[in-house]
Amino acid sequence: MATEQKNNNVVDKNVKGWISYRPEIKVLDCTIRDGGLMNDHQLDMEFVKAIYQSLSAAGIDYMEVGYKASKKIFSTTQFGSWKFCSEEDLRRVIDKDKSIKISVMADAERTDYHADILPKSKSIIDMVRVATYIHQIPTAVEIIKDAHGKGYETTVNLMAVSTVQENEIEEAMELLSKTPVNVIYLVDSFGSFYSEPIANLMQMYLRYAKPAGKYVGIHTHNNLQLAYSNTITALIEGANFLDATIDGMGRGAGNCALELLIGFLHNPKFHIRPILDCLQKYVYPLKEKLNWGYQIPYMITGQLNQHPRAAMNFLKTEQKDDLIAFYDSIIEEE
Amino acid sequence: MATEQKNNNVVDKNVKGWISYRPEIKVLDCTIRDGGLMNDHQLDMEFVKAIYQSLSAAGIDYMEVGYKASKKIFSTTQFGSWKFCSEEDLRRVIDKDKSIKISVMADAERTDYHADILPKSKSIIDMVRVATYIHQIPTAVEIIKDAHGKGYETTVNLMAVSTVQENEIEEAMELLSKTPVNVIYLVDSFGSFYSEPIANLMQMYLRYAKPAGKYVGIHTHNNLQLAYSNTITALIEGANFLDATIDGMGRGAGNCALELLIGFLHNPKFHIRPILDCLQKYVYPLKEKLNWGYQIPYMITGQLNQHPRAAMNFLKTEQKDDLIAFYDSIIEEE
Repeated sequence: MATEQKNNNVVDKNVKGWISYRPEIKVLDCTIRDGGLMNDHQLDMEFVKAIYQSLSAAGIDYMEVGYKASKKIFSTTQFGSWKFCSEEDLRRVIDKDKSIKISVMADAERTDYHADILPKSKSIIDMVRVATYIHQIPTAVEIIKDAHGKGYETTVNLMAVSTVQENEIEEAMELLSKTPVNVIYLVDSFGSFYSEPIANLMQMYLRYAKPAGKYVGIHTHNNLQLAYSNTITALIEGANFLDATIDGMGRGAGNCALELLIGFLHNPKFHIRPILDCLQKYVYPLKEKLNWGYQIPYMITGQLNQHPRAAMNFLKTEQKDDLIAFYDSIIEEE
Repeated sequence: MATEQKNNNVVDKNVKGWISYRPEIKVLDCTIRDGGLMNDHQLDMEFVKAIYQSLSAAGIDYMEVGYKASKKIFSTTQFGSWKFCSEEDLRRVIDKDKSIKISVMADAERTDYHADILPKSKSIIDMVRVATYIHQIPTAVEIIKDAHGKGYETTVNLMAVSTVQENEIEEAMELLSKTPVNVIYLVDSFGSFYSEPIANLMQMYLRYAKPAGKYVGIHTHNNLQLAYSNTITALIEGANFLDATIDGMGRGAGNCALELLIGFLHNPKFHIRPILDCLQKYVYPLKEKLNWGYQIPYMITGQLNQHPRAAMNFLKTEQKDDLIAFYDSIIEEE
């Protein structure tokens, strides 16, 4: 195949295809952040430590541990530590000797970033990722500037773009490319994209990001069993920041599985064995309780380009095995 | 996205992308044939009838019910009806009023096709699919000629091409394109391909098949969670025969899920509701016993481009949850 392949994860333009690798590619694991959405971030310290140790051993570039959420909006009794990621809690997990970088997510309009994000010199955090809907971009830009000014690497994760008109996405790209943000993420919030829209949007994002000296990232969901495949499509097109989680752990249908991604990338710094070890010792036991991953109700919302909320709610009811009831209710609502 | 999309499942060249559909596309369900591999084709009559009724209601083009295996090689006490597909057994399920076509598979060197494949006029079967490894092609060609001469539609499914050199595949294409076969299938036996090799091979197959007036088909496995995605890639490139099974039911990691595929194709003749109904009433209860679908041991054999046999055997042992033990054993064997 080599001679015909597109230039995907390669360094040297003379080395085509899949055998070599592209050293710029960074893998960001968000097992704790996205997985935490399933139980209000009540993941216990032992679990978070185990993930941290495993990701470090596996050569993963970044670990996202949770949110910097506003305590004015979210109750500290309902939500666990990883909703707030205080410096104190982070230091209970993170061993400064390891090279893995730490990221946290700040949701536009749901974070007291001025006070809660410390100057980089006082924090163990390396990167602040700003999650924003299209209508919140001005707020997101302020958070980006604040975090950048404090000394952090930054990303912006524009959510739910499958429901936004292309000309508005372009306008967002124009605006974001003028900020100091380091990485602009394509986010498939509803897990509803297949390869062609991913490739097209990736090209659009790169058209703005590249001349501005920024990287583009990809964050996918598995509602249509396409999380891993869409991540590959994005990297072939030029994405250099790839999000994944162990076993795809994450809300609803979950994310791109880290072990699949590591098996695809050929950079020798990545190791799959520590991930498999962590999977069997820590992640599978938790899965029995939290039950993430692909299921038909998520497929239905994905096919209809809807938020998986209806599917998540349905799966909590006693009717949860009645696929036809769910299908009919969703179609009726259309 | 529409204006930028490649011309995938469309009729009219003026209609771009995913909104319209390509009427040449045929969907072949092989739930009973591939699923039967998990229990020596001991699927009971009620189950087979339910699948048949559902596929008919869903507008599926072909249903594959099993093999035409040699009774000299395979014991009729060990194997169920669908290993042999006698005319009598087929007629217990098939209602001639329905328009869905019936296919059976004949493995090169494991079928007494001269005697066991009746003239079309005496059979309810519409299509004979010949499965062959690269070294069996001369035998496959004889079966194709025999079946074609008897009045059947035919396909040839060249297996395990991920372990065959490209120049040999080209030679096979040259040979097969000169036979009377109607469809040449790209088969990802080990579930080890991602989008680029699928696209490249699909182009190669089409280079030979198209001028000879033949269609190309795709049959995928889900070892790397890419069965559905590779099926989409193949159809974008030009595959017109798409294999799938309900819930991906099939040996090991299973196949492309029919409900995902039907949700993607926009031909109004297809209906997803009967598939969901069948899934919850018949397929899920059986899954509790037979347990197909993506699991880490299949991922490992897929990543290493190996037959999933080692993974299937491992998953039958008491050690089955010890992923590291399996990973280490496979790496050592390399």
